[in-house]
Amino acid sequence: MLIWFIYQYMNYRIDNLQYCNWNRKIFEINRKANLDAVHVTVVYHEDYDEFLVEVKKWEKLFNENSDLIFPGKNFTDIQKAHQEKKTAIFFGFQNCSPIEDDINLVEKVHELGCRFMQLTYNNQSLLATGCYEKNDSGVTNFGREAIAEMNRVGIVVDMSHSAEKSTLEAIEISKKPIAITHANPAFWHSAKRNKSSDLLKTLGESGGMLGLSLYPHHLKNNTNCTLESFCEMAARTADIMSVKNIGIGSDLCLEQPDSVVEWMRNGSWSKSKNYGEGSKKKPGFPKQPIWFKDARGFENLEVGLKNVGFSSDETKGILGNNWFNFYKSF
Amino acid sequence: MLIWFIYQYMNYRIDNLQYCNWNRKIFEINRKANLDAVHVTVVYHEDYDEFLVEVKKWEKLFNENSDLIFPGKNFTDIQKAHQEKKTAIFFGFQNCSPIEDDINLVEKVHELGCRFMQLTYNNQSLLATGCYEKNDSGVTNFGREAIAEMNRVGIVVDMSHSAEKSTLEAIEISKKPIAITHANPAFWHSAKRNKSSDLLKTLGESGGMLGLSLYPHHLKNNTNCTLESFCEMAARTADIMSVKNIGIGSDLCLEQPDSVVEWMRNGSWSKSKNYGEGSKKKPGFPKQPIWFKDARGFENLEVGLKNVGFSSDETKGILGNNWFNFYKSF
Repeated sequence: MLIWFIYQYMNYRIDNLQYCNWNRKIFEINRKANLDAVHVTVVYHEDYDEFLVEVKKWEKLFNENSDLIFPGKNFTDIQKAHQEKKTAIFFGFQNCSPIEDDINLVEKVHELGCRFMQLTYNNQSLLATGCYEKNDSGVTNFGREAIAEMNRVGIVVDMSHSAEKSTLEAIEISKKPIAITHANPAFWHSAKRNKSSDLLKTLGESGGMLGLSLYPHHLKNNTNCTLESFCEMAARTADIMSVKNIGIGSDLCLEQPDSVVEWMRNGSWSKSKNYGEGSKKKPGFPKQPIWFKDARGFENLEVGLKNVGFSSDETKGILGNNWFNFYKSF
Repeated sequence: MLIWFIYQYMNYRIDNLQYCNWNRKIFEINRKANLDAVHVTVVYHEDYDEFLVEVKKWEKLFNENSDLIFPGKNFTDIQKAHQEKKTAIFFGFQNCSPIEDDINLVEKVHELGCRFMQLTYNNQSLLATGCYEKNDSGVTNFGREAIAEMNRVGIVVDMSHSAEKSTLEAIEISKKPIAITHANPAFWHSAKRNKSSDLLKTLGESGGMLGLSLYPHHLKNNTNCTLESFCEMAARTADIMSVKNIGIGSDLCLEQPDSVVEWMRNGSWSKSKNYGEGSKKKPGFPKQPIWFKDARGFENLEVGLKNVGFSSDETKGILGNNWFNFYKSF
């Protein structure tokens, strides 16, 4: 009875992927959007020492904006954030470069706040294969060791940018549910970064989470994607995997200069330019759809999801409660 | 006529892979063996900064043993060494870790003397797949970029520890001949590190070199391998690939403590112990065969190779001239 009562009133808002050019204004927007938690990308291709530099930058941000944000370590910080009307910030990596080739660094980055780590960005990593490689050899020897260690210390395996076979193997190898924090189903919009229905089915059955992305390159019709189309896609995704395994990972990159997306795609591995999801004509960050310019778009999502038939509880689940429950698992 | 005259008397001795615990005594042994050049492994899993430390150690060795060794940069240094009765030392890497994830470091390591770089050690690297992985996805996106850059600056692609598909792709992608500096044919002794006849055929046809290994784990009957068996294997290898593409890469690890072979195999990627070519019962360095305890064994090889039917020129080729000619290509 008590559990039912609590569940009834549980109403967390979580955006499980943002990579903004952080400043007070953005934290204020996230608060206006009632976000209790945000999983933020703190590094892409940085090594361990460079990650330490980012941690220092975040310490400054936490100090200067302590009325708006604080570092999140586990699900109780989401409850605390909700009570204090603040946003708990959870660190994540979009590549495994901070652990370099050292299994012992997994525990170190966890101590410093890392809670999500992608095994790959777009290319092959030491752990697995990225979705922009020609061939996918799956999880490597070091990858198996790293997943076991991530399971042990409590870092979620994130396969958002990984290739399919690698992702299926990660699901199988990991003793805890994994996440695809920011991607959409390929049935709706075919893109290297979007995921097959088979993969989503396996992910859902394993207890893993999909964070639906609002990044225009992952959306049907890009910037011109409609709210209706997005929410219809969510409904069809819920036919493939349980609605309880669906959340939001907006992939918002507010106020980032285009030089950043160039670096995200190229790192330092190529002498020629790689445009990733963009093109030579459109190399920069794409414009957000009008109904999701920033996290305040969660309000539009709430309306849109209900309009396509999701119940109030299901909608609350997608907009945060499902991620909250998932956070309890690590 | 002049070329014939020079060729007739060309008689270089080259060991194209040693990883010893370097000291004056070993340099003296190499001189007693009349080695004009040695390709030495300077790093396995070290990153760029750690490679710089090794370069400093070598500067000290060069200074303290300038009557015996000097740094080799190209084939003319082999001629110089031969004239001065010294050994030219060429730097090589057994993993690509010193270039980290930065294409620009390829030129930097070349400037510091690197002339051979393995795209992988036993595991998956950012460039290709090692022979101890379950699956081989071939040369990666970064791998293609790195090979082009290695071709440009003059670093030989070495696939000694790589998996087969990766090796075949490297041969195809590289605009310059590649090398397998230290391995043997699998038809003679089946081991993860030894190479298939198909691969050796393709390697030879592409102008690439195979350095036959004297490391016991690569030998039929390990430490008890006979000189006759080894030289018979060389003769059968010369039926697969031209004798001009065969040399020696002894893989001598003189005076190394067993802690080093443990580190070579495990790096820092695993929390459990990996025994590589060894086993739990025999975790350390294996003993060399009695006829190749150190580089002075080249004398035995000369006798043995002639005994199985190689001509004087062919024998000279295998023992050094072939590598000398290969060094002209980069």
